Amino acid sequence: MATSSVPVVTFAAESLRSFVERVFTALDVPAADAVVAAEVLITSDLRGIDSHGVARLPTYVGCLRQGMINPTPTVRVVRETPSTATVDGDNGLGLVVGPAANRIAIAKAAEIGTGWVSVRNTNHYGIAGYYVLRAIEAGLIGWSMTNSSAIVAPLWGAEARLGTNPIAVGFPAGEEPPIVVDMATSAVAYGKVEIAARKQVAIPEGWAIGPDGTSTLDPDEVLAGALLPLGSTRELGGHKGYGLAIVVDLLCCALSGANWGPWAPPFSPGLPTPSRQVGLGIGHFFGAMRVDAFLDAAEWGRQVDDFIRTMRATRPQPGTTGPLLPGDPERDAEADRTEHGIPLLAPVVDALRTISADLRVPLDEPIG
Amino acid sequence: MATSSVPVVTFAAESLRSFVERVFTALDVPAADAVVAAEVLITSDLRGIDSHGVARLPTYVGCLRQGMINPTPTVRVVRETPSTATVDGDNGLGLVVGPAANRIAIAKAAEIGTGWVSVRNTNHYGIAGYYVLRAIEAGLIGWSMTNSSAIVAPLWGAEARLGTNPIAVGFPAGEEPPIVVDMATSAVAYGKVEIAARKQVAIPEGWAIGPDGTSTLDPDEVLAGALLPLGSTRELGGHKGYGLAIVVDLLCCALSGANWGPWAPPFSPGLPTPSRQVGLGIGHFFGAMRVDAFLDAAEWGRQVDDFIRTMRATRPQPGTTGPLLPGDPERDAEADRTEHGIPLLAPVVDALRTISADLRVPLDEPIG
Repeated sequence: MATSSVPVVTFAAESLRSFVERVFTALDVPAADAVVAAEVLITSDLRGIDSHGVARLPTYVGCLRQGMINPTPTVRVVRETPSTATVDGDNGLGLVVGPAANRIAIAKAAEIGTGWVSVRNTNHYGIAGYYVLRAIEAGLIGWSMTNSSAIVAPLWGAEARLGTNPIAVGFPAGEEPPIVVDMATSAVAYGKVEIAARKQVAIPEGWAIGPDGTSTLDPDEVLAGALLPLGSTRELGGHKGYGLAIVVDLLCCALSGANWGPWAPPFSPGLPTPSRQVGLGIGHFFGAMRVDAFLDAAEWGRQVDDFIRTMRATRPQPGTTGPLLPGDPERDAEADRTEHGIPLLAPVVDALRTISADLRVPLDEPIG
Repeated sequence: MATSSVPVVTFAAESLRSFVERVFTALDVPAADAVVAAEVLITSDLRGIDSHGVARLPTYVGCLRQGMINPTPTVRVVRETPSTATVDGDNGLGLVVGPAANRIAIAKAAEIGTGWVSVRNTNHYGIAGYYVLRAIEAGLIGWSMTNSSAIVAPLWGAEARLGTNPIAVGFPAGEEPPIVVDMATSAVAYGKVEIAARKQVAIPEGWAIGPDGTSTLDPDEVLAGALLPLGSTRELGGHKGYGLAIVVDLLCCALSGANWGPWAPPFSPGLPTPSRQVGLGIGHFFGAMRVDAFLDAAEWGRQVDDFIRTMRATRPQPGTTGPLLPGDPERDAEADRTEHGIPLLAPVVDALRTISADLRVPLDEPIG
């Protein structure tokens, strides 16, 4: 996320997309897979979720170059029922394994009403919301979850034991744009702590604990401590965010045979693997549900449109513009950035230029 | 929940169960349905969720006596695929319609891997956790959600537009007891505000807003204002609790044809129906997933046991006993109350005695 103190350079989305594709193919990722992987990353940048877009490219590149991620995985179904599948991602890019597994969920929904896919032996898959957008395109309700390396404390714990474990659920509407819930199950994303650290400002009470397990307002203490689950404290419902993180871990990992909780491998070429491994890689979980399995699709569209308009008509809380619908901010960002380009922080641009030089993959000039 | 200032009277669970069964049959509920309805209510009391147990019996009785709830519903499937069903509850007791619909989800899971059921034209169904316990008994992962009448504000809204919309997800384990997440998607249950009102103490910042839409610490202001969603404020993730409440509303109501958001009918014989009705009754949503659709059940049991023990081994936050697993407090209450009886507040006992006299259904003497 851009802060006023750091210079910003703007690139056309298509320039970045093409660059990411060529970077992945230069690292032996098959061309069709590189297109999908770039699509996931650029979708994140377009939707304003800067932390999960090309800012992460150096990490993907580092993992591929160090052999931590397999560029040519054979993604296979290891168990199956008419409505479910368990997928082994062969340690491929999550940006490739995720979309492949999501397509299986969507195909099963078309066949039998719903489809549910748990995935092991995979890696960081980008934004959870990308996957439910694919379901929505097909007229389906979509679900997407992933675990990630431990940075969140269980309620009443003094150390990180769970990932930020996001949950996305997406709903097509009628005439209105779709509803896209896409949320970490922690009180806040780690990216917001990083911003506070860069600005050297205090973080709010309820975001994190320091190494001793007590509340901290110092962003520099969080990496040695932990983020708090959504709800933050027992009084405000921290057991609920913790419970949701457990749901994600069990559906993504225990169900597929991936590493849950503190044993999730790091998404970083520099960090060691945890002392125990209880499965393969990290895990994802995808779901797709056909609306017309439950009711006429036209009636669904009318009801969801009505729901959206009803929420928007809520009397606003003083000092606010009134309730948004989940997905509004991301859709606004996408419209703006599709037209005006994607602003990147100077350090991100520097990292892309280093990749460009190392791999001899040209990067277009910025547009602003 | 018992407070020191209000006298408590203890009844054997079987006495209360038998009483509730006979009350429902006295109100023309068929005997088999009365057994199920009593089972749901007593499970709530046994598990320590006093707000959803026999304390609600007067409301169910009032709704039945006023003809607001149909004692002899024909619960029917109105649409179906191999993995889904839409159920019309014929305006029956949610305590009867819910278990019937949940059984359909469980049966479909046995058949095809997973089963997903959306329910309209139903009423308050007790605790969400009851339903996932039935799935767990069958060795399945269970899901349960319901909407309820509006008492929660959308983030940045100044008025109640959504129910507390609970989500329960339950997971069988191996040797360890199951994990049962059962959570309202609001920051806090309304019952806790009622307790504060009774004690005339302030509620914490982050629970609620008053009639003007700004934060209130006065429990007496909440009924004219609203509860806040889980996360409470934008800074602490209130958009996430709001997003989860939307997920529940759409799966339970838009998908089945029930009343969502502010149009959910009240669960109270005294209150008027909202000015608009967009469907029939309230809605529920149930899911069941066969573990062995994804991996060997024995391996699942080992992984979940290991997960549970790993979470329990987390270094405790100072001043706490360390992390619990979801379902721990309820299981402890169930063990205690099965042995020592169910403590009821004196006003609840008075209400049961009034029902006993009105319907000429004897109530056993308390045991303490």
